[in-house]
Amino acid sequence: MKTRPLRPSPRIRVSGAIRTRRIRPGSSPGTVVFVGEQRLAKVQIDVIHYDPVGWSEQLDVSVRGCADVVREDSITWMNVSGVHDVDLVERLGECFGLHPMTLEDIANTTQRPKVEEFPGYIFMVLKMIAFNEESENIDIEHVSVILGDHFVISFLEDDGDVFDGVRDRIRSSGGRIRLMKSDYLAYSLLDSVVDHYFLAVERMGDIIEEVDDRLLEDPHPGDIKEIHGLKRSILSLRKAVWPIREEVAMIVKSESPLLTGESRVFWRDLYDHCIQIIDLVETHRDILGGMHDTYLSILSHRMNEVMKVLTIISTIFIPLTFIAGVYGMNFKEMPELQWRGGYYSVWAVMIMISVSLYLYFRRKHWL
Amino acid sequence: MKTRPLRPSPRIRVSGAIRTRRIRPGSSPGTVVFVGEQRLAKVQIDVIHYDPVGWSEQLDVSVRGCADVVREDSITWMNVSGVHDVDLVERLGECFGLHPMTLEDIANTTQRPKVEEFPGYIFMVLKMIAFNEESENIDIEHVSVILGDHFVISFLEDDGDVFDGVRDRIRSSGGRIRLMKSDYLAYSLLDSVVDHYFLAVERMGDIIEEVDDRLLEDPHPGDIKEIHGLKRSILSLRKAVWPIREEVAMIVKSESPLLTGESRVFWRDLYDHCIQIIDLVETHRDILGGMHDTYLSILSHRMNEVMKVLTIISTIFIPLTFIAGVYGMNFKEMPELQWRGGYYSVWAVMIMISVSLYLYFRRKHWL
Amino acid sequence: MKTRPLRPSPRIRVSGAIRTRRIRPGSSPGTVVFVGEQRLAKVQIDVIHYDPVGWSEQLDVSVRGCADVVREDSITWMNVSGVHDVDLVERLGECFGLHPMTLEDIANTTQRPKVEEFPGYIFMVLKMIAFNEESENIDIEHVSVILGDHFVISFLEDDGDVFDGVRDRIRSSGGRIRLMKSDYLAYSLLDSVVDHYFLAVERMGDIIEEVDDRLLEDPHPGDIKEIHGLKRSILSLRKAVWPIREEVAMIVKSESPLLTGESRVFWRDLYDHCIQIIDLVETHRDILGGMHDTYLSILSHRMNEVMKVLTIISTIFIPLTFIAGVYGMNFKEMPELQWRGGYYSVWAVMIMISVSLYLYFRRKHWL
Amino acid sequence: MKTRPLRPSPRIRVSGAIRTRRIRPGSSPGTVVFVGEQRLAKVQIDVIHYDPVGWSEQLDVSVRGCADVVREDSITWMNVSGVHDVDLVERLGECFGLHPMTLEDIANTTQRPKVEEFPGYIFMVLKMIAFNEESENIDIEHVSVILGDHFVISFLEDDGDVFDGVRDRIRSSGGRIRLMKSDYLAYSLLDSVVDHYFLAVERMGDIIEEVDDRLLEDPHPGDIKEIHGLKRSILSLRKAVWPIREEVAMIVKSESPLLTGESRVFWRDLYDHCIQIIDLVETHRDILGGMHDTYLSILSHRMNEVMKVLTIISTIFIPLTFIAGVYGMNFKEMPELQWRGGYYSVWAVMIMISVSLYLYFRRKHWL
Amino acid sequence: MKTRPLRPSPRIRVSGAIRTRRIRPGSSPGTVVFVGEQRLAKVQIDVIHYDPVGWSEQLDVSVRGCADVVREDSITWMNVSGVHDVDLVERLGECFGLHPMTLEDIANTTQRPKVEEFPGYIFMVLKMIAFNEESENIDIEHVSVILGDHFVISFLEDDGDVFDGVRDRIRSSGGRIRLMKSDYLAYSLLDSVVDHYFLAVERMGDIIEEVDDRLLEDPHPGDIKEIHGLKRSILSLRKAVWPIREEVAMIVKSESPLLTGESRVFWRDLYDHCIQIIDLVETHRDILGGMHDTYLSILSHRMNEVMKVLTIISTIFIPLTFIAGVYGMNFKEMPELQWRGGYYSVWAVMIMISVSLYLYFRRKHWL
Repeated sequence: MKTRPLRPSPRIRVSGAIRTRRIRPGSSPGTVVFVGEQRLAKVQIDVIHYDPVGWSEQLDVSVRGCADVVREDSITWMNVSGVHDVDLVERLGECFGLHPMTLEDIANTTQRPKVEEFPGYIFMVLKMIAFNEESENIDIEHVSVILGDHFVISFLEDDGDVFDGVRDRIRSSGGRIRLMKSDYLAYSLLDSVVDHYFLAVERMGDIIEEVDDRLLEDPHPGDIKEIHGLKRSILSLRKAVWPIREEVAMIVKSESPLLTGESRVFWRDLYDHCIQIIDLVETHRDILGGMHDTYLSILSHRMNEVMKVLTIISTIFIPLTFIAGVYGMNFKEMPELQWRGGYYSVWAVMIMISVSLYLYFRRKHWL
Repeated sequence: MKTRPLRPSPRIRVSGAIRTRRIRPGSSPGTVVFVGEQRLAKVQIDVIHYDPVGWSEQLDVSVRGCADVVREDSITWMNVSGVHDVDLVERLGECFGLHPMTLEDIANTTQRPKVEEFPGYIFMVLKMIAFNEESENIDIEHVSVILGDHFVISFLEDDGDVFDGVRDRIRSSGGRIRLMKSDYLAYSLLDSVVDHYFLAVERMGDIIEEVDDRLLEDPHPGDIKEIHGLKRSILSLRKAVWPIREEVAMIVKSESPLLTGESRVFWRDLYDHCIQIIDLVETHRDILGGMHDTYLSILSHRMNEVMKVLTIISTIFIPLTFIAGVYGMNFKEMPELQWRGGYYSVWAVMIMISVSLYLYFRRKHWL
Repeated sequence: MKTRPLRPSPRIRVSGAIRTRRIRPGSSPGTVVFVGEQRLAKVQIDVIHYDPVGWSEQLDVSVRGCADVVREDSITWMNVSGVHDVDLVERLGECFGLHPMTLEDIANTTQRPKVEEFPGYIFMVLKMIAFNEESENIDIEHVSVILGDHFVISFLEDDGDVFDGVRDRIRSSGGRIRLMKSDYLAYSLLDSVVDHYFLAVERMGDIIEEVDDRLLEDPHPGDIKEIHGLKRSILSLRKAVWPIREEVAMIVKSESPLLTGESRVFWRDLYDHCIQIIDLVETHRDILGGMHDTYLSILSHRMNEVMKVLTIISTIFIPLTFIAGVYGMNFKEMPELQWRGGYYSVWAVMIMISVSLYLYFRRKHWL
Repeated sequence: MKTRPLRPSPRIRVSGAIRTRRIRPGSSPGTVVFVGEQRLAKVQIDVIHYDPVGWSEQLDVSVRGCADVVREDSITWMNVSGVHDVDLVERLGECFGLHPMTLEDIANTTQRPKVEEFPGYIFMVLKMIAFNEESENIDIEHVSVILGDHFVISFLEDDGDVFDGVRDRIRSSGGRIRLMKSDYLAYSLLDSVVDHYFLAVERMGDIIEEVDDRLLEDPHPGDIKEIHGLKRSILSLRKAVWPIREEVAMIVKSESPLLTGESRVFWRDLYDHCIQIIDLVETHRDILGGMHDTYLSILSHRMNEVMKVLTIISTIFIPLTFIAGVYGMNFKEMPELQWRGGYYSVWAVMIMISVSLYLYFRRKHWL
Repeated sequence: MKTRPLRPSPRIRVSGAIRTRRIRPGSSPGTVVFVGEQRLAKVQIDVIHYDPVGWSEQLDVSVRGCADVVREDSITWMNVSGVHDVDLVERLGECFGLHPMTLEDIANTTQRPKVEEFPGYIFMVLKMIAFNEESENIDIEHVSVILGDHFVISFLEDDGDVFDGVRDRIRSSGGRIRLMKSDYLAYSLLDSVVDHYFLAVERMGDIIEEVDDRLLEDPHPGDIKEIHGLKRSILSLRKAVWPIREEVAMIVKSESPLLTGESRVFWRDLYDHCIQIIDLVETHRDILGGMHDTYLSILSHRMNEVMKVLTIISTIFIPLTFIAGVYGMNFKEMPELQWRGGYYSVWAVMIMISVSLYLYFRRKHWL
């Protein structure tokens, strides 16, 4: 098996998927504690204000007081990259009147996706999934979105480019986004995240497809570990993706005044995408299950074939060795030994036996 | 195994089943982008107008403005073959007042089957499934149907003959279809599509049956790949068929004024057919699962039988070889070697031993 | 394995279970086309009229016009054996005011069990299941029952004796059936059909029990095919039986005026029987699944035992053969060969070795 | 394996679990026919009358007319041991105004657990489960309870002691039972039955535990049959226990005037117990499934180990035998044969080879 | 395999998980009987009274009469460690007006988690789960919480430190807990318990992870028993954790006046945590299932590889031995024996054969 070129196995590792350390048991609920691993040195806050006629953007805002961030006359989108600065999160919570439980969930990166309505705002937790081409890992990132009357706050763990598309659409004058309310902005953010799911799931699908093709061509003992790894990755993906469906369904059905009738069709569309993603993940899972079975069958069959051939070789030689043994006996009186051509006859017999056995095994389809 | 005539394996491949590339993440929803592979050089539009007393037909209409297509006094059925011409789709959308999200879904051939009510029309997405006898593939085609007050628009990816039956029934003067509203036409289109499912699923069933029969007669190592392929095809079929049931159920329960009471019994009948299709697909799936298990059992049993026979041959010869070895020893003093007839006695003993072993294995049912 | 008497394997085949050819795609719904295989040469129609005080019976009625069959003053039960005469079905449909979709479903023997309420009547489709002792097949027959205000029409594919019990109860003066409305007659017909399920499922259970006992006693390679066949039969049975439960549940919950309060307790009882049947089928299915696993385990264990014994025989002889080989060498200087009793000592050593190995294998529980 | 003492295997057989012969198909519903095997020679009827101030008891009452059994001024509990006397059941039915379907279900011991409300009474069917320590069987007994306004009738197949506890509590003056209505008595009876489930399921659990321990210590080929038997027993238990949960849930939710508010908390408690029983049964089932897998793995691993050791023995001797064979050749010119110490050198080489192989296999962890 | 250092296997045993002995069948419901094993010598009762302005604490209170415990002007939290003192439980029940069924469930440590509303109080049963680092066991402890208007009573089996965090928060003046009603205290207690689940499940996850890593590196026959043990532990955990979700869901939906609107958001948060725990447990379960399969595949593959190598060694030597045997024959006339260099030629042939076989097996990827 060593002739195969050693290539880097596309082993997918899902970062931060199953870890779930919560705060010290018995601690007061609503305690804002950062749970996770810090990915950025410094928290960066970007703010965009927009209305149908224009927009303004402030990069790397430093929030000292509420006056810095609240503005009533336009829609404000504040994007916070990094949630490890607990003080900052608490300060923002105060300005926008957020419930302590909301703040706890923002900083706890192991929180499960969910939506919750609070007086004055809707709080959404979801997971960003990205396939990191360099490390061939799937990164799962904690994302929180707060939808208020005239503002949307989004929290990311890292300073990714996931919302760049939305930013561009706000900047371009012709877009629908500037004409709609804040709920459409929240929808756009969630939609961006779910769009990235397609990329990740598809990349995963490509790898599964690749492994599947290889399995049928030339199964390899190490493949079982790769399938095992893929199965675990799919389990992690499932855990991140499943709750989103319910979350969006709850938003579609919600009667909160923050959700306008105009944006409902878009939320419904997002719901469709969620189902499509889940469909894909489940299909991949079924395929992986089938691959495992098929792989085992092929490998075991191949092994059996090898053993069969080896055993057949032995079986052909064993009677011959026996015959040789017979004429190696030292009996005084063994007439064949004296025969002329006895030796050649024995060779003839032995060749006949081996040919017969070979033909017999052929006819039985054992070879 | 080489005596078996090499025949083309009925390997089913499902085109376009699991692919799901959506538009660039973060792009504005409602952007009409063609997703899929273009199957036709040119989009062809055919229009039929009919009312209880007559009908007229225009083939290969070129839509320049709305005046070309809208007519109020009769029911209009516009069939569009090919959805890759985004401009055309947008022009039609404008004429019939379709929502941008609808247009996006028409051009996105990876969209999941669904039904959605918009003001003024109902939008249905489904999948056409056809067994291509030439390539032995199952083709999955994206179909959209828009049901308006006095019009129905159907979009196909290709210029197939799936709606020919409906066309004939409109042309024939006696049919019920000319007497009913546009919802009956929409029903007829969906019914045609679902009728084709039966053909495809049945063809699949024939192949499964054929493989199953072969497995029980003469299992073959390569069959495992065929079962693997069939399992994957069934997974794809399931994904295309399952959502349709829910879709038709929603239409049956819908209270839209576009759906008349008279056609309800037909929709209910269509719902029945959907369940029947799903039943079939699930049954095929269970059968395939059982086939895999049974196949493995038979193959492994057969292999074991071979190994057993080979091992028994060895086992019979090993004591004989030992005896030959004993009398091949060069001890000075081995009385048997001097005996008269010693050689023949050894042969007698060896034959006796082998016959006894043979009989013993027979009695133990090992042979 | 050849000592076992060759007995006819109780292989169950389910006729007409998974076939589902529907009418030509795109054909008009409501087209009455016979789908299935014709079982009778001629359609036979028997009519019974009854009321609390008496009854009259007409065998082999020929229906020319509606006057032949409709009667208002008593309850009419018309039993039609054979549904391939499409004209007749249509004529009856006209007389009793049946919807075209109903007629289509009567003649389509692949229609799934269901219940549907139409103005003026309730239409029920179900499947008759019978174990044919001669051919050892399970026959599935299409049965339709139409419950009208003062009439019940039943359609069978064949002229079986399934309704004989009901006929007898009408003829006997003391029965409850003559005192009740037409819905009780419909109930009695369905009850007869479901009662036959018990017979078929029980017969199946006996066969499973028999195979199970045999497996534990003396598993046989061919049994795997029998289990495979039984599994497929159970799948078919399930498909025929499952929908009936929902069907009867809908009748129990229905508020149709055709269903009187008095008969409700009987429908509920029928519902109980349906659940019991499904319970049985599911239990049989689980048992079959377990049988497959257990059978494989036993067979594989037995095979392993055989291989172990054979390998042990080889293993005992191999060192002996080696020793014989050593003293067969032709070295000039081999002192043992000159020893007095050298030959006998070698025999002693060889016997010692083989006994030690035997005892060792015993102690290790390998023998 | 023969050193193990032969102990009676704790094989559980479930009597009367899957049998389900119903009455002759097509017979009139409500026909009271005894289905099952008669367990008692004679039906015994015991009656207890009680009210808050006192109680009276009549053993082995013979019911000739209704006057014998009905009493209005106190709560009457009639316990009937044996349901094969159809006449008696019908006579009781007449006295208490029971529906014919009720009577049919009382005598049909294959009836599934259920609850049904009739005018004037509630009819409950359930299954008594007892572990018979003598025969090591699980007995399933048919129990019916009829709850009327001022009476409760219980029907058992056998004259067990299941209700002794309830009897004692009525006799003791301080019990709550005498102060409550008849529904509390019915609850007490069902509670007694469900309490016995715990005993049976626990006993089963002990056996499973015992088998599980043995499997991990010293798996035995026969164990597979025992696991198979336990699996089937659990399937039967499940079938008897599952419907009870739904039954009690329906009683809890029922709005029948026969069920007083005071007893509701007790019914709810009973419901809890039912869920707990089902939990246990399902857990046992999962454990059995896991046991099967683990057992197979251990057994197969052990077998493989044996084969490996045997094969290694062969592998060590085969090169040695080859060397011996070489120097057994009769070539005229073989210098080694003439060497001084050639013989001893060959021994040295052979010992070296075998030791090297042994060490190599050790280092590879093959030994 | 003996080179691996023998380390104590992290075998998890779940104490008291599946045991379910209930009270003597037929005994009166509401009989308070201690079921379980006594863990403490003496019951200890600690009482804390608090209101927004202050708090007082009494350790090891001895309850003689109701006057000792009831106080109306502040919120009273009574924590009872040890439930085996049935008299005490009954005395408390009297003071606080608890239903006999409640008392029974407090003392019955096998009671399933549930919530029940009684007049005047809500009764909650749950299970404390803790990973005991010393014994490497998972301990399951029975916990009951009674939420009254101005009091909360908690019952533990043991004197653990699970509620220490809550106690600290009451003592600290700034906490939210002192400002809220008794339902917030009950929430805090349940939240503490559920927080401990995370610790236990995570510890379990670490062990699974550790075993998984080891499996992929160096699978070991004993691992199958460890996986078996982990699977059973997960089954027990599941049984303890699943019902809590439903329990908290019922509290969230409850309309009891004891549950204030202010605490609802906290209960909802607790519900989220329950789902997260269940998610984790299910994920662990799936991983364990996959581990079993993968482990078996790897082990069986490794075994096969060993057998293959051994068989190949045999296969190479068998033809050689045959050749040696041929030239060991004693035929008078064997020309090769007389050839010069015959012996060396034979060696050459034999080396050629073995090298060819070796290369052939290499090329076939069998080595």
